[in-house]
Amino acid sequence: MRIEISSKALDPTLKMLAPARVWGMSRDQEIEYARKHNIPISKAAKKYSIDQNLWGRSIESGPLENPWTSPEEDGWEWTVSAEDAPDKPTILEIAFKDGVPVALDGAKTPPVELIRRVGKIAGDNGVGRIDHMEDRIVGIKSRETYECPAALAILEAHKDLEKLVLNRHEEEFKSIVDAKWTFLAYAGLWDDPLKEELDAFINKANERIEGRVKVKLYKGSMIVVGRESPYSVYDFKTATYDSSSTFDQTLSTGFVELWGMPTVVSRKVMNKKK
Amino acid sequence: MRIEISSKALDPTLKMLAPARVWGMSRDQEIEYARKHNIPISKAAKKYSIDQNLWGRSIESGPLENPWTSPEEDGWEWTVSAEDAPDKPTILEIAFKDGVPVALDGAKTPPVELIRRVGKIAGDNGVGRIDHMEDRIVGIKSRETYECPAALAILEAHKDLEKLVLNRHEEEFKSIVDAKWTFLAYAGLWDDPLKEELDAFINKANERIEGRVKVKLYKGSMIVVGRESPYSVYDFKTATYDSSSTFDQTLSTGFVELWGMPTVVSRKVMNKKK
Amino acid sequence: MRIEISSKALDPTLKMLAPARVWGMSRDQEIEYARKHNIPISKAAKKYSIDQNLWGRSIESGPLENPWTSPEEDGWEWTVSAEDAPDKPTILEIAFKDGVPVALDGAKTPPVELIRRVGKIAGDNGVGRIDHMEDRIVGIKSRETYECPAALAILEAHKDLEKLVLNRHEEEFKSIVDAKWTFLAYAGLWDDPLKEELDAFINKANERIEGRVKVKLYKGSMIVVGRESPYSVYDFKTATYDSSSTFDQTLSTGFVELWGMPTVVSRKVMNKKK
Amino acid sequence: MRIEISSKALDPTLKMLAPARVWGMSRDQEIEYARKHNIPISKAAKKYSIDQNLWGRSIESGPLENPWTSPEEDGWEWTVSAEDAPDKPTILEIAFKDGVPVALDGAKTPPVELIRRVGKIAGDNGVGRIDHMEDRIVGIKSRETYECPAALAILEAHKDLEKLVLNRHEEEFKSIVDAKWTFLAYAGLWDDPLKEELDAFINKANERIEGRVKVKLYKGSMIVVGRESPYSVYDFKTATYDSSSTFDQTLSTGFVELWGMPTVVSRKVMNKKK
Repeated sequence: MRIEISSKALDPTLKMLAPARVWGMSRDQEIEYARKHNIPISKAAKKYSIDQNLWGRSIESGPLENPWTSPEEDGWEWTVSAEDAPDKPTILEIAFKDGVPVALDGAKTPPVELIRRVGKIAGDNGVGRIDHMEDRIVGIKSRETYECPAALAILEAHKDLEKLVLNRHEEEFKSIVDAKWTFLAYAGLWDDPLKEELDAFINKANERIEGRVKVKLYKGSMIVVGRESPYSVYDFKTATYDSSSTFDQTLSTGFVELWGMPTVVSRKVMNKKK
Repeated sequence: MRIEISSKALDPTLKMLAPARVWGMSRDQEIEYARKHNIPISKAAKKYSIDQNLWGRSIESGPLENPWTSPEEDGWEWTVSAEDAPDKPTILEIAFKDGVPVALDGAKTPPVELIRRVGKIAGDNGVGRIDHMEDRIVGIKSRETYECPAALAILEAHKDLEKLVLNRHEEEFKSIVDAKWTFLAYAGLWDDPLKEELDAFINKANERIEGRVKVKLYKGSMIVVGRESPYSVYDFKTATYDSSSTFDQTLSTGFVELWGMPTVVSRKVMNKKK
Repeated sequence: MRIEISSKALDPTLKMLAPARVWGMSRDQEIEYARKHNIPISKAAKKYSIDQNLWGRSIESGPLENPWTSPEEDGWEWTVSAEDAPDKPTILEIAFKDGVPVALDGAKTPPVELIRRVGKIAGDNGVGRIDHMEDRIVGIKSRETYECPAALAILEAHKDLEKLVLNRHEEEFKSIVDAKWTFLAYAGLWDDPLKEELDAFINKANERIEGRVKVKLYKGSMIVVGRESPYSVYDFKTATYDSSSTFDQTLSTGFVELWGMPTVVSRKVMNKKK
Repeated sequence: MRIEISSKALDPTLKMLAPARVWGMSRDQEIEYARKHNIPISKAAKKYSIDQNLWGRSIESGPLENPWTSPEEDGWEWTVSAEDAPDKPTILEIAFKDGVPVALDGAKTPPVELIRRVGKIAGDNGVGRIDHMEDRIVGIKSRETYECPAALAILEAHKDLEKLVLNRHEEEFKSIVDAKWTFLAYAGLWDDPLKEELDAFINKANERIEGRVKVKLYKGSMIVVGRESPYSVYDFKTATYDSSSTFDQTLSTGFVELWGMPTVVSRKVMNKKK
């Protein structure tokens, strides 16, 4: 992803920071300009177009522009290849409060440090690479790779905790809210009032996203293997199929009959007309 | 997932096939009944409640009913643990036509055999396990594990090919269609006319889902590393940031200005009122 | 709509209030019981099944059960027929603050009184009737008529004001939020935590729903004919096609080109393959 | 709505048809140009910006650019004011087959003639005006009025018939499909492959949209007062509350208990934690 910025929107300060953009240079012209003026560029940045922040790196262009070719190793910096990861799995325990990750393996950890440490651990286990075809907002399909080990691991844990705490109505709708929030962020509409409205929804739901999640990281794979929360709506007594179940199985007779009725009636009418 | 079936809906034949359900037995009463009448039950089936078909196995109950506990190895039958998988990755090439997988590693393969072979290869590489909290249609939250290596690998490849072929409008809406289709299947509403309507949409979109996808399987991880299609909408010439780009960068000035205008105007109005 | 209540859910007090429900009586058995015990029932209530509160009345059953037959006049109590409404239109001005109606024709009015007065004025002009086929949550399709003049008029005005104040991103998503909120209310899920989450979204968006709306009521028709707000995002200077426009028309060249690009590229690929 | 067309997209023929657009003229410059060259313009077209086709007219600009001002009568051509409409209502019966209107008041009528006749009848009864705030795709909020009597009447009848024929699953999802279809048409994306995919869905659903709908038109108001279909899923026997009902009321006990369970459990957990 590259955020396109109109030159009209740039204030003078920004213009000085990003003159190559305003000058309308292409990537190879930028690199040539830097060479001439002794501006240092990393080796990866010469081969690829790279953006980077606390959450992740995007790597594109160069040999990646053929979607049939596997990404070479030289673009990755935060993750080892799955084959080079340790032979023993790592279990990472992430704790959440109000939907925010607050502790690692039982130790309270401030946000930036937590992101850095989760990213390091996941990346060291070969977890955190994305390679896919993407739709830029300006209408172009492109092949993009990302390296975002902390984001992937924390989101996986957060989502799993949501499944323990939120009920089916909340989960179904929150997935729609999350998709829209993501779109706004991706589309450069972070400042839209809709984001504040989605935030209000998300913050409300996050009030109960509290608890611990165990994530197993191993040679490029990541899987949640345990979760618990004081707000869990899971209740062993109703969910079990044992005779100790407190769930009244006879209730399901009426439920199933009525749940399926619209479908059964539609089908009856359709068969009659054939 | 366990499909709840109303006894009223059962025809006499089915009643003979599933008498324990009609008799209102719990799982442990069923097992005791089988023991008494010398009906053989596999060891796993004594410990867990298991459903199984070509696409996958669901394993629930028993020790799985504590969501904090990692699933033990004895419930899995189609997948090895990531640690026990081979030390070398396997690259699987799946080819699609009209959205349907038709060939493996270049060899035309009929559907059932293809599913079995993909399942075997993925499972042997430790890929195919799901462990999550689920919302049964009858209103109960439960912990469910699934083993469905072929389904996971084929869906991953199919979805990746869609990203190469469908444009952003199609992808965004098809994700909504797919979610509803999945809900109907899960909720026992397979026979609803809505499914036929969703199928009409999906079949139309699948007309262009043709091509090849390379999937790398390794010690529990699965990642797509290459894709190609005669219907690809990816075009190197426009997507590149090189000077060979045919994309007219000046167009983005107007686009970005207008794309962001509703957000900018809203924010201006809101600031004025503060 | 009739909310179905499980007898198990009723506490003893409620059982005394609604014994006919617990006794499993049908509507005609209830009427016969009331006759025997000298419990007075209005004439309309003998012919129809009626529910009523501040916001509206639902009228169903009896002659309404044939969807081809127009509702007779004797079921309506809060609205006159369009033909019997006055020969002159009424213009009603409703003012909103934080999304809540607060004044009528310039005079501050407390909520309950406002609902009553809007309902009276709309109903007197023949506005407020709904006649449609409905899907009860218990799976039955039924023909229902409603009389809710205040609700229809206030919602129409509120929605119109939203179109003046919210931008396209907000409007599109709020329509999804509104549909889900309505579903929860209809489906007896008022108490679900999802409603609180939707409320958080709605309250945030409503912070700017402030201003006045003119509604013209006349012989069964209702139309908004004017609206204004301090938070309006409408700006004459950009919207006009006059030469006084401050909108830079040249920007649309780039916008249109890029906006349509995914469609154009898809079509090109599809034509090539035919 | 005004479809913005990039000059690059125009072929030479179109450029000759719409030179004023390519020349970058504003509306008042266009009018001046026409005056000079003796190109006749209707009186309404001098005051407003008007687009027109079989389905409707859009009227914008001029005095309409103040959203607080009611539209004047001189912009409307296809509809009389509600006050000037006849004192007697008109009942119009529209018949559909495969979702398409095919007959009026019992007489088979070809599509274009049907649209013209429905438009004339609705317009003569003061039905067909829209006055609202709109979001142009190019990011501008504008006030638009439309005159589309046939479209409004036929869509109202079609939607009502859908409620008789489609079940709740179909109705809920088709509303999402319809909204997206409408967006594509509005946004100039008619040619997108997504439209063909939505069409496949819609055509499938329309196979059962067959029957008759009675629409009452009267002094600006329109209301459906009766509908029937060979594919109706309405069944008097289950829907009635009479003792003749074949609906087994006891089924609803189980249904309501399980339907509400996720909500009840969530609330219990939330109360415990407070």
